[in-house]
Amino acid sequence: MSSSRDPGAGRVLPGRVAVVGGGLIGGSLAAACRRAGVGEVVLTDRDPQVRRRAGERGLADRIAGDVAEAVADADLVVLAVPAHVVPEVALTAAASAPTGAILTDVASLKSNLTVDVESRLRLSGLDPSRFVGGHPMAGSEHSGPDAADPTLFQGATWILTPTAVTGTAAVQVVSGLLRGIGARVLALAPQRHDELVALVSHLPHLAASTLADVAGEASAAAGEVVLAIAGGGFRDTTRVAASDAALWRGILTGNRAAVLAALERYRDRLSEVHDALARGDDDRLETVLARASEARRRMVPKATDEDVVDVVVALDDRPGTLAVATTALGEAGINVEDLAMRHAVDGQRGALLVRVAGGVRERALQVLSAQGLAVHVESEGAAES
Amino acid sequence: MSSSRDPGAGRVLPGRVAVVGGGLIGGSLAAACRRAGVGEVVLTDRDPQVRRRAGERGLADRIAGDVAEAVADADLVVLAVPAHVVPEVALTAAASAPTGAILTDVASLKSNLTVDVESRLRLSGLDPSRFVGGHPMAGSEHSGPDAADPTLFQGATWILTPTAVTGTAAVQVVSGLLRGIGARVLALAPQRHDELVALVSHLPHLAASTLADVAGEASAAAGEVVLAIAGGGFRDTTRVAASDAALWRGILTGNRAAVLAALERYRDRLSEVHDALARGDDDRLETVLARASEARRRMVPKATDEDVVDVVVALDDRPGTLAVATTALGEAGINVEDLAMRHAVDGQRGALLVRVAGGVRERALQVLSAQGLAVHVESEGAAES
Repeated sequence: MSSSRDPGAGRVLPGRVAVVGGGLIGGSLAAACRRAGVGEVVLTDRDPQVRRRAGERGLADRIAGDVAEAVADADLVVLAVPAHVVPEVALTAAASAPTGAILTDVASLKSNLTVDVESRLRLSGLDPSRFVGGHPMAGSEHSGPDAADPTLFQGATWILTPTAVTGTAAVQVVSGLLRGIGARVLALAPQRHDELVALVSHLPHLAASTLADVAGEASAAAGEVVLAIAGGGFRDTTRVAASDAALWRGILTGNRAAVLAALERYRDRLSEVHDALARGDDDRLETVLARASEARRRMVPKATDEDVVDVVVALDDRPGTLAVATTALGEAGINVEDLAMRHAVDGQRGALLVRVAGGVRERALQVLSAQGLAVHVESEGAAES
Repeated sequence: MSSSRDPGAGRVLPGRVAVVGGGLIGGSLAAACRRAGVGEVVLTDRDPQVRRRAGERGLADRIAGDVAEAVADADLVVLAVPAHVVPEVALTAAASAPTGAILTDVASLKSNLTVDVESRLRLSGLDPSRFVGGHPMAGSEHSGPDAADPTLFQGATWILTPTAVTGTAAVQVVSGLLRGIGARVLALAPQRHDELVALVSHLPHLAASTLADVAGEASAAAGEVVLAIAGGGFRDTTRVAASDAALWRGILTGNRAAVLAALERYRDRLSEVHDALARGDDDRLETVLARASEARRRMVPKATDEDVVDVVVALDDRPGTLAVATTALGEAGINVEDLAMRHAVDGQRGALLVRVAGGVRERALQVLSAQGLAVHVESEGAAES
């Protein structure tokens, strides 16, 4: 294998990378490879329009007409295609690439897919140790080459899911490239990856959907009162429930076993909470709430790892008013930790919630008031009570 | 009862309003009453500092030294004090106010409180029909008179909770005032109010806390990988779990019966979803997801009632950068429907999610790119997959 060395960082980059799929992930990766100094970056896509745009945007050194042509001289092939076509494209790529070429993918579920790819390679007389699964924690593959951004993976985590079959070379080559484009590499068994995704993405989705469904029933019965009572907590907690049902059917059923296990764990913990509340064991209830609060603050550290306050700015629902507030804060050197919009039910009167560090609370209020804005401070949780 | 008439809107305002409690709600209400043209607005608070600040800010026509003095000539007494002292203060106020004076409160739970106030009034030989419970859907009582804002209730919903005991005059007088300050008045039985609050505020809180707790366990076992996998969906769904545990213990146990009922309903629905997924009834799963999606869009109509897209702006985590983006959009006349901050796990690279109408998507991208910002579009749900 030829390889070029990035002298600044001392990371070993593969000499020739082929990217199959020119969407956001594939396009961004190709562009990032070029920027990082990979010897040659070749991109292909089955859609001629995508190939054309990728070429116009200079995402790769060369645009190839098909997979076989793209991978012919590759040291590393990245399959940035939809999950359901990964096994088939992996086979084509492995058959057309040099014998020692490494393969990886970017699909969001790893367990079944990895088994599938490995067994197909083996059945075709190809070496399954050349493949290692991957899952970048950034962006979305749905937005095409125009959205490609060479900095998309900078600072992002890219999970690799080696198995007992995976060769050391595969992990080394892929890790080397990923570090070279600024990503943080973490290794995880495929099944463990899927379990964790079930727990922190798929379960929250089901929890949110079920909440929205139950509240929706009450809303159908009680009308606009429910809409009036549903505040910021409801809005945040159920936000993902508004997503496309067919898309999520595919995601959830694609990870069925892990989602079921996560659901059972969640249901058991809910029962514990229910039982504590039912028997008046309020200390136990508070223990769970405190443990959850600590876990949430630990898992989403930014914006909650210090004393913060939400400054509520009454806003007209018109373009430009928002900018007045944020510009004033920016000019005063006040960092905005988080932002949310809150609209009145009838849409007539909105508010902007600006989260700032507790230490600059008074300055933030002053700066915003000086712009003629009506402001007050809201403490977390209090607005829900 | 003396009454002044607002000729513009034809709403009957009580002539003299006494507000007990000078926090955000009491202070804002007093200021709103003055603005609406109430004959005389008297404010009191047990804290001399609060009385002094309320006086300095001109929140009321007159600041009284105690409850008895404040309510002596009142047509309407608003008890804007913490829930646990409402019954006691209601008794003092009813005993000191003119016989025909109406009383209302602003506590966030109504069922037990209303029974308590009515029975105490009755036991003291005072007329319980003079009291009607209330719950404004705005702000928080925790921020003191400095946060008071006369426009806080404009367009906000104010729920009144009359019982079989409540007199027509009480509902009429309070409604007249609330409409006069621009609030929308909705009536609801106290128990129904508490049930709905349990469903759209307390249950979401427990659901979020339990999610964070279960994920926190996995995080303790799997370390930073979980942090890396937890994306925007997790962040939104568990946001309220970071709240103060002791505060929420009080809220949840204060509404125990309704919270238990809501939890049971939620658990049953989760079981249905679980069972559908377990037996491979994916159509049933999709039905629930679709119904939830529709309910969520209906209940939080703004920002999802039309085709919207999230534009992702890569941001430095420094003051001012945010303003560049929002100012550019404002100057281009592009309305921001929603805003969120997304931080990389290591806090080094953040992104701003700007939700705009689908129709202005290309213009928003253009405007932001022209500012030298790296932007792409993210479709809802896709980033989670």
